[in-house]
Amino acid sequence: MLLNSVKAALIDKQLMSPQYGYTLEQLMELAGLSCALAINKEYQRISATSSPKIFIIAGPGNNGGDGLVCARHLKILGWNPTVYYPNAERLCQKQPFYSSLVKTLEEMYDIKVIKNTLELDVLQKYLDEQKYVVDSIFGFSFKPPIKKGVYSDIIEKLAQNQHNFKTISIDSPSGWDVDNGPIVSENGLKLDPDMLISLTYPKLCSKFLKPEASHYCGGRFISEKFAKKFGIIPLNYEPGSLIIKL
Amino acid sequence: MLLNSVKAALIDKQLMSPQYGYTLEQLMELAGLSCALAINKEYQRISATSSPKIFIIAGPGNNGGDGLVCARHLKILGWNPTVYYPNAERLCQKQPFYSSLVKTLEEMYDIKVIKNTLELDVLQKYLDEQKYVVDSIFGFSFKPPIKKGVYSDIIEKLAQNQHNFKTISIDSPSGWDVDNGPIVSENGLKLDPDMLISLTYPKLCSKFLKPEASHYCGGRFISEKFAKKFGIIPLNYEPGSLIIKL
Repeated sequence: MLLNSVKAALIDKQLMSPQYGYTLEQLMELAGLSCALAINKEYQRISATSSPKIFIIAGPGNNGGDGLVCARHLKILGWNPTVYYPNAERLCQKQPFYSSLVKTLEEMYDIKVIKNTLELDVLQKYLDEQKYVVDSIFGFSFKPPIKKGVYSDIIEKLAQNQHNFKTISIDSPSGWDVDNGPIVSENGLKLDPDMLISLTYPKLCSKFLKPEASHYCGGRFISEKFAKKFGIIPLNYEPGSLIIKL
Repeated sequence: MLLNSVKAALIDKQLMSPQYGYTLEQLMELAGLSCALAINKEYQRISATSSPKIFIIAGPGNNGGDGLVCARHLKILGWNPTVYYPNAERLCQKQPFYSSLVKTLEEMYDIKVIKNTLELDVLQKYLDEQKYVVDSIFGFSFKPPIKKGVYSDIIEKLAQNQHNFKTISIDSPSGWDVDNGPIVSENGLKLDPDMLISLTYPKLCSKFLKPEASHYCGGRFISEKFAKKFGIIPLNYEPGSLIIKL
């Protein structure tokens, strides 16, 4: 079974309600960690040397925050991440926790965080150097049509270049309709990730992944009791594991 | 090499400084998670069936908070925890985040949290039923002598009964001097844990563990650069691992 966008939003809201008591900091930490663990499990084995480069594109909301946390844990696990965080200054003012996440990346881990919005030819140069790109632009709360602007440009660029690297989407492929799947741009392009890491539970759009794509779930935030209450069949995680390959 | 208590406190303060940007919620989440992973790795294999019982004793400060998070992740990993959290009401008023942690335990996971202070014979009955007890009473900021009262009573009870279960201490064995090791009570008792999970980095007192004790480290909060700045030799974690057995 798969979650629709309404139920995904409801579950997220419930988790952070006074009844269940999770904080954004906790959920984001565990979500980003599980993304890093999944990426490390899927690709570390086939990387020839240690410290493979990886480019994380962080969007304006909590999906972007998950990407920031993911970048930190990737570094801890031996990767060499660069973070692209357009409009960082404005976003960090709006949500001070994003600012803390960026501080830890820069000051503790010397991770380069690109905080201005790149010209498309500069973004192209970055993409030309990558074997792995993490799409943490939009998550389960995104609703098409996408607004013309920096994020639609980035997604278009990603779609144009996606055959040159592994594209890894967090929670849902950016620009997709969470319930109905891929959206083709007016230039006939769509993002088609090689890997998806669903958080909490897979969404409807995951059934539109290409057959050869890897699909993981992470973010073990809900109990069996809670799952039942929401009509969800619990995933069968292996003992001791924080992620599951579906 | 091992950390003394002054350096441990300084590092903790630095992590949550505006420069490095970690929040208490993040650090506690990752610390408690690594404790659960270490316990699960060390003991899950020798437990005959799934859902082994485990009793977590949470103290008044952040070491207690680590224990609360550890209890949740143990449940997620298939254990059956009961939490003993004396003075819970007062502590949760002082630090609302502890209250959130308790809410998640109770409401999401149906974990029993004993929030009043147990009579010693009632505590004895709980201890009589355990094969695993987690000591998350005091951490690196504890300074002996211990004040006579509920926590000294609990530690004494633990020491009396420790041969009947596995005692697992978080960060430092409770009641010990973080720099100089075990403190023998006036009744001639001392806590002598079977397992220690050091957080961030092992403290001086860890060299006084009994030879057969297991020693893990978790809480990968610091970079190699930061470690060097504090004169610490980074631990050699296995690829992809959040914990290390020392």
